[in-house]
Amino acid sequence: MAVSSFPCIQPVRVPFKACSLFPAGVCGGFNKKKKINAIVFSSLRKFEKDVNFQSKVDTLLNSIKWDDKGLAVAIAQNVDTGAILMQGFVNRDALATTISSRKATFFSRSRATLWTKGETSNNFINIHDIFVDCDRDSIIYLGKPDGPTCHTGSETCYFTSISDLLKGQEVEETNLALTTLYSLESTISKRELELAGQHGKPSWTKRLLSNENLLCSKIREEADELCRTLEEKEDSSRTASEMADVLYHAMVLLRRKDVTIENVLDVLRRRFSRSGIEEKQSRVSTESQV
Amino acid sequence: MAVSSFPCIQPVRVPFKACSLFPAGVCGGFNKKKKINAIVFSSLRKFEKDVNFQSKVDTLLNSIKWDDKGLAVAIAQNVDTGAILMQGFVNRDALATTISSRKATFFSRSRATLWTKGETSNNFINIHDIFVDCDRDSIIYLGKPDGPTCHTGSETCYFTSISDLLKGQEVEETNLALTTLYSLESTISKRELELAGQHGKPSWTKRLLSNENLLCSKIREEADELCRTLEEKEDSSRTASEMADVLYHAMVLLRRKDVTIENVLDVLRRRFSRSGIEEKQSRVSTESQV
Repeated sequence: MAVSSFPCIQPVRVPFKACSLFPAGVCGGFNKKKKINAIVFSSLRKFEKDVNFQSKVDTLLNSIKWDDKGLAVAIAQNVDTGAILMQGFVNRDALATTISSRKATFFSRSRATLWTKGETSNNFINIHDIFVDCDRDSIIYLGKPDGPTCHTGSETCYFTSISDLLKGQEVEETNLALTTLYSLESTISKRELELAGQHGKPSWTKRLLSNENLLCSKIREEADELCRTLEEKEDSSRTASEMADVLYHAMVLLRRKDVTIENVLDVLRRRFSRSGIEEKQSRVSTESQV
Repeated sequence: MAVSSFPCIQPVRVPFKACSLFPAGVCGGFNKKKKINAIVFSSLRKFEKDVNFQSKVDTLLNSIKWDDKGLAVAIAQNVDTGAILMQGFVNRDALATTISSRKATFFSRSRATLWTKGETSNNFINIHDIFVDCDRDSIIYLGKPDGPTCHTGSETCYFTSISDLLKGQEVEETNLALTTLYSLESTISKRELELAGQHGKPSWTKRLLSNENLLCSKIREEADELCRTLEEKEDSSRTASEMADVLYHAMVLLRRKDVTIENVLDVLRRRFSRSGIEEKQSRVSTESQV
């Protein structure tokens, strides 16, 4: 699976040694006064053996189109759910630090210092990969957050919907910028709360939530119908529709078991992105898993 | 389902009338020399009846923390997949235009003009909602793209992985910043290509792709096992694991039928976010769908 990763996967906490990976000056802005969880890779020696690594990082940093203040935009995104967690700015040092520490690090424009998300809250964003855009002036930190990212305690910083504001509705921190799957998940959770509080209108979701036999028979039925679109060579639009049914009904079951889609994606990522060696050790046949 | 939307859902193409929704000056920067698909809402009259609407938009625009150049960051995100499509900057006019036109509009710093993504390529990003962050200086345009967003023809502008660069690997425009589900989908597609070209190692995915009976029996089996985690009160971690199995095997079937996860999510969104009236018309029982 193409959840790519930097060379030398396993991080070990060692203070400030990360800077040794970069030429003098690259990590100069790192805030040494704070107890920052600086990280180096366990296979640092392997890294150091790559005499080209520092020059590769330098070349990369030189290729970024820094603005007139030496900054580029950095967007932190949850590797599993795709949720945009926060957005900040990076300078050369911040990006270099993120590459070495694998913890999302930014440049604070107001305080004019580097800061690693989580350095005070411990809610780090653990980097899986970093992407730059076609113009080389915008960066995605694709990572897994240790906890809520927003200083308000919200999962992400984006909980204010403009359409809600224009409709005059109050801002709720549970109303995150949710994409389709998570929006449906949120609706199912609301139906469960309504069911518990015996309010709200009747709905199919509530019937499923309160009838285990109905729910399981629907999941088996929808899975069967999905298969039949292949077996009976039905139109692809039927396949999309039946898969939507499978997903929806299975998500109601997940809610019953207090499991989130993010939990499921976490399992999928760990299962399919593990390193070749780990995968080999766990293999029972000569086939690779995916 | 909480894919929220602005009042007055249906857009109708009428040149430049969108500006009439805003006070003089708000749309002043709109590039009138180009054939821009300016949009107004079909129920404009209803809008105009809301005497507070313009002042609500003004209040909102005043609440944004514009930087010293009058700009804020705007990130366009695919409402279904969560993919970050592109990032640009907005000024007051650009955000106002996006609110009225429901087409992602930015301010070009190099050309010092507004530009609507798609105005030349027709690959508009159709806005479903807009979110502002806790600091009110960063914006998400949550929308559905009409086609590839990047000027290179790539689906998103983020196809350059820093880990690939540091490993010295070539940049492929198919190596997008993919989150877990889409990364798995991409791997399954690669296995199908390998199978067609008779290269690559043996894998379980390839076996499933080439054996319809095996694939369908696995999907039915995994759906059954998922249900049994509820029926037999198994641990929630088993539920997550079985759901991962259901998803993976079902995604192999989707590949066989040339259906993407995005197609499925599109169905889910249309099914669950349709307006009350549409939903009512299609209902067969007195229950709401979700």
